[in-house]
Amino acid sequence: MVDIQEYLADRRQVVERGLKQYMLPATGDFSVHVQAMRYSLFVGGKRVRPILCLAAAGCVSDDPEIDTVLMPAACALECIHTYSLIHDDLPAMDDDDLRRGQPTCHKRFGEAEAILAGDGLLTYGFELLSNTGLPGPDGATRLRLVACLAGAAGSLGMVGGQFLDIDSEDKDVAFERLQAIHRAKTGALITAAVVMGGMGAGADSRQLEALTAYGTAVGLAFQIVDDLLDVTASTEQLGKTAGSDAEHGKATYPAFFGIEKTRTLAQEAVDKACSALASFDDRAEPLRALAQYIYSRTC
Amino acid sequence: MVDIQEYLADRRQVVERGLKQYMLPATGDFSVHVQAMRYSLFVGGKRVRPILCLAAAGCVSDDPEIDTVLMPAACALECIHTYSLIHDDLPAMDDDDLRRGQPTCHKRFGEAEAILAGDGLLTYGFELLSNTGLPGPDGATRLRLVACLAGAAGSLGMVGGQFLDIDSEDKDVAFERLQAIHRAKTGALITAAVVMGGMGAGADSRQLEALTAYGTAVGLAFQIVDDLLDVTASTEQLGKTAGSDAEHGKATYPAFFGIEKTRTLAQEAVDKACSALASFDDRAEPLRALAQYIYSRTC
Repeated sequence: MVDIQEYLADRRQVVERGLKQYMLPATGDFSVHVQAMRYSLFVGGKRVRPILCLAAAGCVSDDPEIDTVLMPAACALECIHTYSLIHDDLPAMDDDDLRRGQPTCHKRFGEAEAILAGDGLLTYGFELLSNTGLPGPDGATRLRLVACLAGAAGSLGMVGGQFLDIDSEDKDVAFERLQAIHRAKTGALITAAVVMGGMGAGADSRQLEALTAYGTAVGLAFQIVDDLLDVTASTEQLGKTAGSDAEHGKATYPAFFGIEKTRTLAQEAVDKACSALASFDDRAEPLRALAQYIYSRTC
Repeated sequence: MVDIQEYLADRRQVVERGLKQYMLPATGDFSVHVQAMRYSLFVGGKRVRPILCLAAAGCVSDDPEIDTVLMPAACALECIHTYSLIHDDLPAMDDDDLRRGQPTCHKRFGEAEAILAGDGLLTYGFELLSNTGLPGPDGATRLRLVACLAGAAGSLGMVGGQFLDIDSEDKDVAFERLQAIHRAKTGALITAAVVMGGMGAGADSRQLEALTAYGTAVGLAFQIVDDLLDVTASTEQLGKTAGSDAEHGKATYPAFFGIEKTRTLAQEAVDKACSALASFDDRAEPLRALAQYIYSRTC
């Protein structure tokens, strides 16, 4: 059994070290711009996507250096996730003042500066994946990682999902639409994190299929829990404004199903994620524990 | 001698066909989002960056299919350029209502939608480069193209330059700072267009060095001319608001040197660009003509 709290604390340290190592330094002509990027990247965060990426890699590879090899890819995922938060928080989008208990990037640096900090982090994700001076898998696999991340983060993935989300505010939304939003907005990047870990560690197609199914189910669970916490947790607990979904007239799982049924659906998604890992050995224990951890946040 | 008008008309048709072929279709769940991306991509534009990319490729390769091989990369450059215009035009940045004589993306689709259209186009540029189902050079070269584009478009290139530009409004700016802004904001992506064309067509390191020098000089000429046109041309001629630089208190070449001296500096940059091509044969004629064409816009 994996002690999930201990595991997460250790993994977060590893990821923080990687981010510090690979993030641009705030020096030279562009120092204020890079400061804005670093502010949002280092203001905190659970580092769920890099941790999932490294856990998936550890699930298919025995290479003791696999964390090192995949770290730039793991950092790229966090850069892309952070950019999406910066842009989502903008006045024209969710207009949030708080993120991780601190002023959002545009509150701290200004709106134009925050848009550019987001653009910079998004682009830097692809720099990290394509820089052959950094650790990483062979060139062909690096290119597959670029394609996987671009597809998940782009217009038919995260960006498209955010568009649908904004576009659906204060509208009656069918459950199918809510699912499409969740799959694209949150699910795609979480699935990519898991798949990129596997891909970068040399997973075969059967393993990648299982990891994709796991990632899809975990992504769904993650979003359901996020919807739930927006209703049940305080602003202090969340580090961002609670009740923001209702305020923006957003469709959510609790709005469709109520709190109890939503909890059940989250548990079902977690169970499905774990079933997808049935063919993996003990090396998949961290992935199993991570899925359960996501559910535990609902309690 | 290349008839530049005829050449440009032909090349624009080729690039338009490529963009139509490779751009996402506006169908399915994300159709409105993709419409916003397509609106800005197809509202017009000189297609300078894709044309430079293909011209540089033609300068080092005799392959009659070289346009086809490099077209996804050429389209990626235009996607990145278009995203940068969408974000630059936003209310929080230059707050422009007109672009290419039409309403800007946020005027037409809304501000959140325009931010996301930009994010989508930026990400799609990397999808085009990394999609091995599309034409392109070998995998290792594709990865180099990703690295080149990400570096040029990112925080130490275009995005950083835009940040410096915004950050320098209404401030006394030294000439060195203006140069740094221009190099990063405009020069980096234009240089990348030329270098990516050469790289994708198999240029050796000596050729890449010459193309880099050409791209750097052409990028400078381009920005000087842009500064000049903002003073000397009408809104109708530009298709965007004339006099926008002065209104935003931006440092420009004409503000430093006056109009006549600025024209001379543009011509010097063009001469420098052409000198850089001295070692190339007649296949470099289009690149030489393109440099002269950039200067001709000042007259």
